[in-house]
Amino acid sequence: MGSLDVFFNPKVVAIIGASETPGFGMFTTQYLLNSEFKVFPVHIRREEVFGHKAYRNIREIPETVDLAIIIVPTSQVLKAVEDSIEKGVKGIIIESAGFAETGREDFRNIQQQIAELAKESGVRIIGPNCLGISNVHNKFTSAETDFTNVRKGNISIVAQSGVLGNIILDWAFYEGIGFSKVITLGNKLDVDEVDCLEYLRDDETTRVICLYLEEIRDRTRFLEVARTVVPKKPILVVKSGRTAFGARAARSHTASIAGNDQLYDALFKQAGIIRAEDFYEMFDFAKGFSMQPLPKGNRVAIITASGSLGILASDEVEKQGLTLSHLSEQTLIAMRKNAPDWVSLKNPVDIGPAQLEMINDCIKALLQDEGVDALLWIQIIPERVAKMLGLPLPGRLAYKYGTQAGKPVIVNTFGSPWMKELLHQKLDKYGIPITISIQNAVKIIARMLQYQRMRLKFDKI
Amino acid sequence: MGSLDVFFNPKVVAIIGASETPGFGMFTTQYLLNSEFKVFPVHIRREEVFGHKAYRNIREIPETVDLAIIIVPTSQVLKAVEDSIEKGVKGIIIESAGFAETGREDFRNIQQQIAELAKESGVRIIGPNCLGISNVHNKFTSAETDFTNVRKGNISIVAQSGVLGNIILDWAFYEGIGFSKVITLGNKLDVDEVDCLEYLRDDETTRVICLYLEEIRDRTRFLEVARTVVPKKPILVVKSGRTAFGARAARSHTASIAGNDQLYDALFKQAGIIRAEDFYEMFDFAKGFSMQPLPKGNRVAIITASGSLGILASDEVEKQGLTLSHLSEQTLIAMRKNAPDWVSLKNPVDIGPAQLEMINDCIKALLQDEGVDALLWIQIIPERVAKMLGLPLPGRLAYKYGTQAGKPVIVNTFGSPWMKELLHQKLDKYGIPITISIQNAVKIIARMLQYQRMRLKFDKI
Repeated sequence: MGSLDVFFNPKVVAIIGASETPGFGMFTTQYLLNSEFKVFPVHIRREEVFGHKAYRNIREIPETVDLAIIIVPTSQVLKAVEDSIEKGVKGIIIESAGFAETGREDFRNIQQQIAELAKESGVRIIGPNCLGISNVHNKFTSAETDFTNVRKGNISIVAQSGVLGNIILDWAFYEGIGFSKVITLGNKLDVDEVDCLEYLRDDETTRVICLYLEEIRDRTRFLEVARTVVPKKPILVVKSGRTAFGARAARSHTASIAGNDQLYDALFKQAGIIRAEDFYEMFDFAKGFSMQPLPKGNRVAIITASGSLGILASDEVEKQGLTLSHLSEQTLIAMRKNAPDWVSLKNPVDIGPAQLEMINDCIKALLQDEGVDALLWIQIIPERVAKMLGLPLPGRLAYKYGTQAGKPVIVNTFGSPWMKELLHQKLDKYGIPITISIQNAVKIIARMLQYQRMRLKFDKI
Repeated sequence: MGSLDVFFNPKVVAIIGASETPGFGMFTTQYLLNSEFKVFPVHIRREEVFGHKAYRNIREIPETVDLAIIIVPTSQVLKAVEDSIEKGVKGIIIESAGFAETGREDFRNIQQQIAELAKESGVRIIGPNCLGISNVHNKFTSAETDFTNVRKGNISIVAQSGVLGNIILDWAFYEGIGFSKVITLGNKLDVDEVDCLEYLRDDETTRVICLYLEEIRDRTRFLEVARTVVPKKPILVVKSGRTAFGARAARSHTASIAGNDQLYDALFKQAGIIRAEDFYEMFDFAKGFSMQPLPKGNRVAIITASGSLGILASDEVEKQGLTLSHLSEQTLIAMRKNAPDWVSLKNPVDIGPAQLEMINDCIKALLQDEGVDALLWIQIIPERVAKMLGLPLPGRLAYKYGTQAGKPVIVNTFGSPWMKELLHQKLDKYGIPITISIQNAVKIIARMLQYQRMRLKFDKI
């Protein structure tokens, strides 16, 4: 079987069904034709597309083509695949929908025919019913990705749904999350999550893998491959279709047979994969893994400007099997230095409105305390107070002492969009993850520790 | 015991410890002195505060004063309370911290002495260690509330933590949430959550009550009073200190003894109170209760532009004991009218990129379907597509048919801050709640139904 590399680093691309009309496919056509990639538009009637000479058929292109992107109506897809294979491509992305997911026998048969063509020819096919891929590092995309609003990074996504190919990227930009490769799989007639795991395992720009799945067909192979990935990099997963209603909905979406959820839970556990409840949780976990060192133990120090959030965090610490650090005498003395009398220096350290005076002392002392394995920093302040007095956000300090000690720092906040944006401005550059959920803030530390322990176990085998 | 009304509608107010210096108390002083309320600054040294004549002692004010706000250092609080009582006030708010929550015997004793003064005199006292109150309708506040960034509405908050008096309000403005009264209780030496529940039960501008509690001292009285409130309006609660770590943190925050969490669960259940896991969940529930009619049954219709979010929503529908509506033939015909072939018209109705053509037909038909008790509308679209083609957001239509049929409509979204802001611009005016959590979107419907059924049961008694 061919490598997936053709999808991420194609030399010559044909867009079959290249479109100038507003609607699906237009952005991809427009972007790629004006990019540095060598791209030929194919259209059954048009002479030109966005000023570029168009070809009636991929076979008429006077060069070797290694990747075909197909966005024609359903009825024309089979022919386009046949032509592409004849042309000698190595990879095909079928974005068109209307196959097995419709539940109709005739459409399912066409999908089956295409699958057989892939098998016979060795040409790799992604889709149908998907957005294909984006490679954020070289800026190649079949998924209408707007790279001016996507950060480069080390998180890769493999998803059986288009929403992770665009909407999540729109959102992630403001979350300080950076990506390497994004793959949407759709109905998975050929390329599936296992192929992608294998590829991303060996991909140097990928440090964390996020999966969204509606089904896994070959669980044995999935388990086998996943167990070769996890020792190298963490895999996070959202698996939907957990209930009968959800399973039925998955069938209409990507023709998936969702299957028994408890079996999936067991499978993920066996494979060392970390399961998340929803996309927010998965990407909160990914932030931690992507940006921070793994904790070496379960002792958490909390510094907070809100007593109630400190309590809710403490509840979650216990729920997640972590513990609150016992702070050393030295740490207490260092934090007391600029502290008003009323401040409680127990852990959680509740500095309330004294954050301007105390935050630097606290961050440094807590990260240097040998009884601390991870720091949770709850940063809240009323917007008008921040606007008047400024915002104490010693990101560089936290970065410095966190890195020195090899301890993760996670920031939690609550507040207006203005506050959140300001936090990102000040902390993103130091790779300090920000989450708005206090539960997720604690869970990030718990999952990173879980992964750290799992990896040690793998090392021993 | 005196009524709490003096806190929300005071005639003459004294600020003891009125402050011009940036820091705690300054905003309240500045705002109230420049407001239409009659307010006298009290300061031991100053002649003037913000250009207003200051008095050395509340007793020197040449008028009857009914409310004193105390923001002096801890050591001066007892004397200020004695003076205020002598002056004949009906209510006192003590914002100063440094009492029982320090864990120190001497400070706890002072708090106890003040509590006894309250009891003897009948003067009601809120605090210490709190921000006091805000009345969003008449714009009176002791909590530094910036009313230019708070919406009037029908949700009232009773909270044992300051964060709900300011940070949550900063945030809520952008969430389309409107408030009536906000009360932060701190250490609760006199006024507690039960007093507030009684007051808000009979408050005409309050439709939903949100509680944040670290402890309930008198559970019998709480249960008694809550059971008189719930038939009239829903009570939502976040109770922290659920674990040993959380309980210990609560002691340092408001001197609370958090107690056994299972007992609290049972208590809330008995009282008909709806418990939330965190602030986001509580205020998502509050949005539903505040803006929408209660569902009459458990049949949910889902319209979605994202297949995967439709599946995750379906999973949550089943988890919450709700069911997916079986759509009538008439509804299917109406939705088919402008639909492309590939659209799946099962429930969840997955309209994908066809939302521009179909959304109006779908919303109208689904809300008119007799098999539908509630509509979940999952609204997502890539930002650049929305910017190019416009965003189909028929809020007026959803409002019209939702109101006509007496069915709740809940919107869920995922995306960039730009998208979220646009949704609020278009939907807030129709009172359609927006949540970014797909789980919470479904839970809102479930909790509203739970309340509806509970209320019917109360009616029968």
